[in-house]
Amino acid sequence: MEYDVYVQTCPTRLVLDRLADKWAVLVLGKLDGQPVRFNQLKREIDGISQKVLSQILKKLERDGLVSRSVFATVPVTVEYAITPLGRTLTSTVAALTRWAEDNIEAVLAAQQKYDRSA
Amino acid sequence: MEYDVYVQTCPTRLVLDRLADKWAVLVLGKLDGQPVRFNQLKREIDGISQKVLSQILKKLERDGLVSRSVFATVPVTVEYAITPLGRTLTSTVAALTRWAEDNIEAVLAAQQKYDRSA
Repeated sequence: MEYDVYVQTCPTRLVLDRLADKWAVLVLGKLDGQPVRFNQLKREIDGISQKVLSQILKKLERDGLVSRSVFATVPVTVEYAITPLGRTLTSTVAALTRWAEDNIEAVLAAQQKYDRSA
Repeated sequence: MEYDVYVQTCPTRLVLDRLADKWAVLVLGKLDGQPVRFNQLKREIDGISQKVLSQILKKLERDGLVSRSVFATVPVTVEYAITPLGRTLTSTVAALTRWAEDNIEAVLAAQQKYDRSA
């Protein structure tokens, strides 16, 4: 089958929807190195709530991009890691966040210019 | 100033929000070649409404990623083109849509496996 994101019914649109979530992009970026515990993710992704982080991790796990490991410590330790499939995606994701950091000043300047002329 | 997408108040989060829009990703992808008329964009991006397309183009223009040219034909011709700033973004965007097309089968298989075990 030929997949084409420009066709409305194409399942690839689901992937774009998932990546379209800012929080998913940030979580994938943080998991690119070694496995990370839930609380560490929550601390390092400024502004994310416990509920939203749980939901995102569940979606990413369901998509096969992230794996979840539970260790029988007291209290229980839960770690999240990127899967091999997820790893193929993270370089693209990293390029996106890097673009944002490199070009935000140009974007903000364009917005100011647009608003002045509007 | 140091920009960091992981800091809640960092303006780079605005860029992620914009790209987080599936339609913005699809519009930028279509503009990567030559300028395109509004109606052609609407035709080629299956499922987008006239209203949503207008809104996205206005946002992308305000961000300095897309430029709008009006030609005094009858009826008036309106063309949209990628700007030099926008062009620095499109290769990243193209990698994202290509990833979706290349890996959707693995994602769908992961989802089915997850749902069976849930």
